[in-house]
Amino acid sequence: MNYQVIEKKFELPCRHRVYFTNDSFAAESDLLETILRSAGDDAPTQVLVAMDEGALTSRPQLEAEIKSYFGARPELFQLRGIQVYPGGELLKNNLQYLSKLYAEVEAAKLCRHSCLIAVGGGALLDMVGLVAATAHRGIRHVRFPTTSLSQADGGVGVKNGINYLGKKNFIGSFAVPHAVVNDHRFVESLPQQQFMEGAVEAIKVALIRNGALFEAIEAKADLLKQRNVETSAWLIQASAREHVEHIADGGDPFEITTARPLDFGHWVAHKLESMSGFGISHGEAVAMGMAVDVLYSQRMGFLTERIAERILALIERLGFTLYASELSELNRQGGSKIIEGLEEFREHLGGRLTITLLRGIGASFEVHEMDAAVVMDCIETLRERPVGEAPGAV
Amino acid sequence: MNYQVIEKKFELPCRHRVYFTNDSFAAESDLLETILRSAGDDAPTQVLVAMDEGALTSRPQLEAEIKSYFGARPELFQLRGIQVYPGGELLKNNLQYLSKLYAEVEAAKLCRHSCLIAVGGGALLDMVGLVAATAHRGIRHVRFPTTSLSQADGGVGVKNGINYLGKKNFIGSFAVPHAVVNDHRFVESLPQQQFMEGAVEAIKVALIRNGALFEAIEAKADLLKQRNVETSAWLIQASAREHVEHIADGGDPFEITTARPLDFGHWVAHKLESMSGFGISHGEAVAMGMAVDVLYSQRMGFLTERIAERILALIERLGFTLYASELSELNRQGGSKIIEGLEEFREHLGGRLTITLLRGIGASFEVHEMDAAVVMDCIETLRERPVGEAPGAV
Repeated sequence: MNYQVIEKKFELPCRHRVYFTNDSFAAESDLLETILRSAGDDAPTQVLVAMDEGALTSRPQLEAEIKSYFGARPELFQLRGIQVYPGGELLKNNLQYLSKLYAEVEAAKLCRHSCLIAVGGGALLDMVGLVAATAHRGIRHVRFPTTSLSQADGGVGVKNGINYLGKKNFIGSFAVPHAVVNDHRFVESLPQQQFMEGAVEAIKVALIRNGALFEAIEAKADLLKQRNVETSAWLIQASAREHVEHIADGGDPFEITTARPLDFGHWVAHKLESMSGFGISHGEAVAMGMAVDVLYSQRMGFLTERIAERILALIERLGFTLYASELSELNRQGGSKIIEGLEEFREHLGGRLTITLLRGIGASFEVHEMDAAVVMDCIETLRERPVGEAPGAV
Repeated sequence: MNYQVIEKKFELPCRHRVYFTNDSFAAESDLLETILRSAGDDAPTQVLVAMDEGALTSRPQLEAEIKSYFGARPELFQLRGIQVYPGGELLKNNLQYLSKLYAEVEAAKLCRHSCLIAVGGGALLDMVGLVAATAHRGIRHVRFPTTSLSQADGGVGVKNGINYLGKKNFIGSFAVPHAVVNDHRFVESLPQQQFMEGAVEAIKVALIRNGALFEAIEAKADLLKQRNVETSAWLIQASAREHVEHIADGGDPFEITTARPLDFGHWVAHKLESMSGFGISHGEAVAMGMAVDVLYSQRMGFLTERIAERILALIERLGFTLYASELSELNRQGGSKIIEGLEEFREHLGGRLTITLLRGIGASFEVHEMDAAVVMDCIETLRERPVGEAPGAV
């Protein structure tokens, strides 16, 4: 051994906070003051807001509300601007939006103690999160997820990223936002399909971690489909709680060792999204990806047919289909395109292939290989499944 | 209060390791195996090396040595390529290099458990570190600083970044590298000025944290100037240790709250570098920046004239000048350009202006404003100082 070493272990203190409200920017709300101001602050906090068009479509008054909110508190905040971006994967695919936001941060003279607020769906949160994590090596960042999907899932997580070189989330980082605000008013104005998408991720996290939550979703499925506001808010909060606890208590929040994210059904989902040019939404893709891995778990002898059917039935009952023709597409060599998703999934997460399967509702485990022929057989079963059938539905 | 909150605190475990050696890529060295391999690894570690031209200039055989090292261990490593970049700020100013490295990481099919190795000076380490921290949300990263400056200072830190929109390090992050390897053979072939630059940062960290180290540098100044190898290796290790301890034990390694980096003299240095188009090197700029802040500490009554002179004399004895004409440059309004650096420094670090001053050797404290007229007076004193004078030199 011809070397010496200085080695130091230390711990980086993190605090993850998710707030649930209905009126973030109401005149009387003190939420942002609670989140952003500290006793010792001697100057107004500089704030820049980046939002997507979807947030404005669902709440046309939002821009005026935000201006009015900050305008009424000049001693606490100085609003430097509200920037509106398109939503969806387009935003993550095109570097011009990233460059534009960096330039806006610079023009607004934000510093590391300023605040970059993101208001939008998962794509906007991912792109703005990357800018917030890397401009000046990190600006305080508050996220307002506006879709049920992002409120229940990605928006309360600690990842950000953009797509690059044709790879989803090729450039990104792990960063704990200063705070996340789940304002349910955004969800209430969503069209039915988007309103329901959060439930798909809630089912996912319930299947992996919490059988009682799965049963509760089954019991409230009709209320949810009828857009009952209390049920929807309950489900988003329950799902968000599972995510926050997984991050904080899972032992490896930034996935540095071999810890895996909460991604049941996601190897298929990621591939389906990119194969469809993101025409299949993330929620729709996860519904199908879970269906494939539920059937696979059954075929490999880990789940009973009754339980597998119970899971598929709940997903369908919430309005999601379990099959799209992309699942059966072949590549030029005549092989399955979906199966290529296994290697892409391994490469993205790093190390050995690790796929989450189920041995019961709320009971997950990991495997390191999948039998491609069995996967294709499961896909064939889904293709032949009568649309909307739900035998043995609860 | 019309909201609910889920709040979780957790700690991100970090390990910072700096190795000191002379023969990283020698046939018999097991250092990289120690650093990169774990007992459970079931496949060779994929390795991509990015280096700067300076590393090759000082060690022309390096590329062959690296190929030979990895080629002899096919069961442990697979070398996917060695990419050579220009060094210096050019690399950090031009996005094309960043894009090129992302593309190389993708082409080499690196995953999060692969290793991106950087071999070069501070600019290369900063650029490669940013790619390593953000490709796939973080690839294992091993740094080989090749200059005395980066081995003694920035290369053993946890920051990365590129320049953007004309701002130094505008885009970057905090990330603990998987390991840092200080191979002293790189330093031994540097030209005299670069060989000595590490000593400037060593003096800086000694002035702030460790009076005994300052005295040891004074005692060994002649040996160092004569390029004594043991003295140089000792000084780099002593300086690196101060840095690692500041990061690990300082309580805020990622500078999230109000903790400040080890940056005595750096508000002037950053401005001087950018004013000179990086014609003034970082080490030269820090030497001048420290001289300004030492004299300022004295004029404000915190340091005796004897101690201030003792510090200036040591910097000069190591071969650095304390004044450049840029220090006296005026802007269009007739104001001092250097003074503009105060606001830029505040903006970059965020929050209140915080400047480190001295009340003794090894004893620093912070102030939140500086008297511009006194700063200009200190600069005038340095301008009038006879070159190379070192009255009362030790």
